[in-house]
Amino acid sequence: MQKIEEVSAREIAARVARREVSAETVARAYVERVQALEPGILAWQHFDAAQVIAQAQRVDRAGARGALAGVPIAVKDLIDTADMPTTYGSPIYAEHRPVVDAAVVASVREASGVVMGKTVTTEFATFKPGVTRNPRAALDAPRTPGGSSSGSAAAVATGMVPLAFGTQTAASVIRPAAYCGVVGYKPTFGLLPMAGIKSLSPTLDTAGVFARSVDDAAFFVSALSRIELTLSPIKGWRVGICHTPHWDLASPDARRALQDAARHFDKLGARVVEAVVPGAWVGLAQAQMDIMGFEAWAAFAPERNRHANLFSPAFAEVLASGAAVTGERLAAAHALAIHARGEIENLLQQVDVLIAPSATGEAPLGLDATGNPIFSRLWSLLGVPCVHVPTGVGEHGMPVGVTVVGPRWRDAKALSAALQLESAVRG
Amino acid sequence: MQKIEEVSAREIAARVARREVSAETVARAYVERVQALEPGILAWQHFDAAQVIAQAQRVDRAGARGALAGVPIAVKDLIDTADMPTTYGSPIYAEHRPVVDAAVVASVREASGVVMGKTVTTEFATFKPGVTRNPRAALDAPRTPGGSSSGSAAAVATGMVPLAFGTQTAASVIRPAAYCGVVGYKPTFGLLPMAGIKSLSPTLDTAGVFARSVDDAAFFVSALSRIELTLSPIKGWRVGICHTPHWDLASPDARRALQDAARHFDKLGARVVEAVVPGAWVGLAQAQMDIMGFEAWAAFAPERNRHANLFSPAFAEVLASGAAVTGERLAAAHALAIHARGEIENLLQQVDVLIAPSATGEAPLGLDATGNPIFSRLWSLLGVPCVHVPTGVGEHGMPVGVTVVGPRWRDAKALSAALQLESAVRG
Repeated sequence: MQKIEEVSAREIAARVARREVSAETVARAYVERVQALEPGILAWQHFDAAQVIAQAQRVDRAGARGALAGVPIAVKDLIDTADMPTTYGSPIYAEHRPVVDAAVVASVREASGVVMGKTVTTEFATFKPGVTRNPRAALDAPRTPGGSSSGSAAAVATGMVPLAFGTQTAASVIRPAAYCGVVGYKPTFGLLPMAGIKSLSPTLDTAGVFARSVDDAAFFVSALSRIELTLSPIKGWRVGICHTPHWDLASPDARRALQDAARHFDKLGARVVEAVVPGAWVGLAQAQMDIMGFEAWAAFAPERNRHANLFSPAFAEVLASGAAVTGERLAAAHALAIHARGEIENLLQQVDVLIAPSATGEAPLGLDATGNPIFSRLWSLLGVPCVHVPTGVGEHGMPVGVTVVGPRWRDAKALSAALQLESAVRG
Repeated sequence: MQKIEEVSAREIAARVARREVSAETVARAYVERVQALEPGILAWQHFDAAQVIAQAQRVDRAGARGALAGVPIAVKDLIDTADMPTTYGSPIYAEHRPVVDAAVVASVREASGVVMGKTVTTEFATFKPGVTRNPRAALDAPRTPGGSSSGSAAAVATGMVPLAFGTQTAASVIRPAAYCGVVGYKPTFGLLPMAGIKSLSPTLDTAGVFARSVDDAAFFVSALSRIELTLSPIKGWRVGICHTPHWDLASPDARRALQDAARHFDKLGARVVEAVVPGAWVGLAQAQMDIMGFEAWAAFAPERNRHANLFSPAFAEVLASGAAVTGERLAAAHALAIHARGEIENLLQQVDVLIAPSATGEAPLGLDATGNPIFSRLWSLLGVPCVHVPTGVGEHGMPVGVTVVGPRWRDAKALSAALQLESAVRG
């Protein structure tokens, strides 16, 4: 039998529910992994082994009922936890302890999951990096894990947890998943509840997850949401290759990843076609930036008024550029988004899913920046479900992959195609 | 010169900025009104005269700069305030004091406004009424002020404040505005920040405002959002009469209000036409209920898990019906909404604005229920800006009026038409 820290989250929950293993045993195995691996990674903002064990013991005592029975889950430190500090990656909240769990955290507890701790986020889920290192990079040539859900992606990549929460407003689930070589799943905008997650841009903010496999990502979100994500065969599906309006920014590694994915789909019996996106979509990335900036400026009024001196220059710049967005520019950005949301509905009737680059290439060298979010901005703005699937490595041996995009509220389609791609890649 | 508590909010801010009157003098005048009128109305969940005066004194000392200088503003008790308790209308939060102001509250303070206190909300902005009475009803025949922003509507209706915040997920701004005979303005979904407002259904929740005039409502939201809402003449505009799919629920009073509004627009030089809405829109109300129920069930996971015994039967029922919404039903509801959002974009290219009933008629007798939200559910789901304009009274002398609906992110259009209608009504 496989070691408990090597099996899937779905299998952990099944074994715990069948009493083949206790939640406490699972927790102790994962705590050991964290203790062994964390010093080289720095994925955790808050980790308290005793608190984890105590939670697992409570799950065991309560009979280990629930869809996530005994599964260790990491929580991005943008998400409120009533029993752990929550800093939002900012010194303003260094001592903050929320009164109430975020809704997604309460759902984990309701399903008998175990909250392993809080993972490093960039400052308020924007651009100032945290301390986390990319676990796939050499120690002497560190690379960014991506952001903003840096710690969650790194924690899953190293097996310190099987599942983790992230959030995405621009590219904060898909990019770190791509850079760290794990599955990242940003559901349809609105699928997971945002209550108790620090608001950055509420018409864009989307809770998402990291997992070691597509199946585990689907399992996790199903367990949280009561939405059954039933994955189906994709033979005969039409898969649209989407170069996006930003193809010139895709490195040879990123281009090869998209070609590889297309080849896999072809072998899987799908019909791979070119998806031509409307020319106006070139404006979606700027529209996403305008909306995010405008809304961030508004959302951070309390902090702006009282603690602006504790903002990093990078975050101050996000707010300043948001303050420069006029009502007219905002309206134009939303008008473009409204129109493009109609167009992608039509496009996704001609093809079942799209595949597109997840990032410009491998994780960049250094820890001073979290990489370019360009390839996810448009999908975040359109609200469509996205799944990052690792497809291989680039010229420096770092992970690359593609994003599978499906129609809104048909997340199972994107996940089904992603699952097939993943099994083809894994051979 | 008019007494300060009789002039517009815009005029208060102008006079305070010119030092013709101090913020403290304004605050004292309004405090007196609250003390005189509150016992018969019960609009306030929290009101502390000394705290109000102290805020106004701080505004004066700081030079009374800011677009809302010295303007007294009521805040629905669903919205976080760091210096006042915030109950969300629930005994679960009877002792709750948030750490941080909601973004809209921080914006008021930034603009040198004065927070007068917290107004009564129904439980978690749903159906269990608070104690507030409709100020337009006879004392011996009490009527509901509507919900969920009950206290804010009543406070503005009685002149206890010139401006107030509400929120709308189904009909919680427009309905109480209609029942109390004040202007209610629900901006485009996403225009005002939701940070620090208790989440009920994040794809629907919208912050809005109450005012004594359309101009004040526009002034208030402009001051908060940096979006200039420039109101324009409407001569030659096309105004579409929209009976909605629920016309059979409109009382003779509500029907007469719509006819009156149409006649006013005709006299104003607008072209009044019948707006035919797609037959499928009959499903939007149920779709709104399905989405709201599903999201409420998810959002209230923390309270469900720990304090379900403190829910009212009405709120427990909201969550239970949400728990019954399957993924398939949810997807169908969103698919209908996505389609109808495209259709209303097209419809609002054929006409400039729509006018529609705001409620089924006058405020119902009694305080046990807050009235039927049916006429606003569809607009909340479509995300369009709505302005309630009082047009007269019904058969029992209670206020009636209409909703002016404009295209998303073109709030100034709905406000411009509402302003003209208002001046026509006022003669």
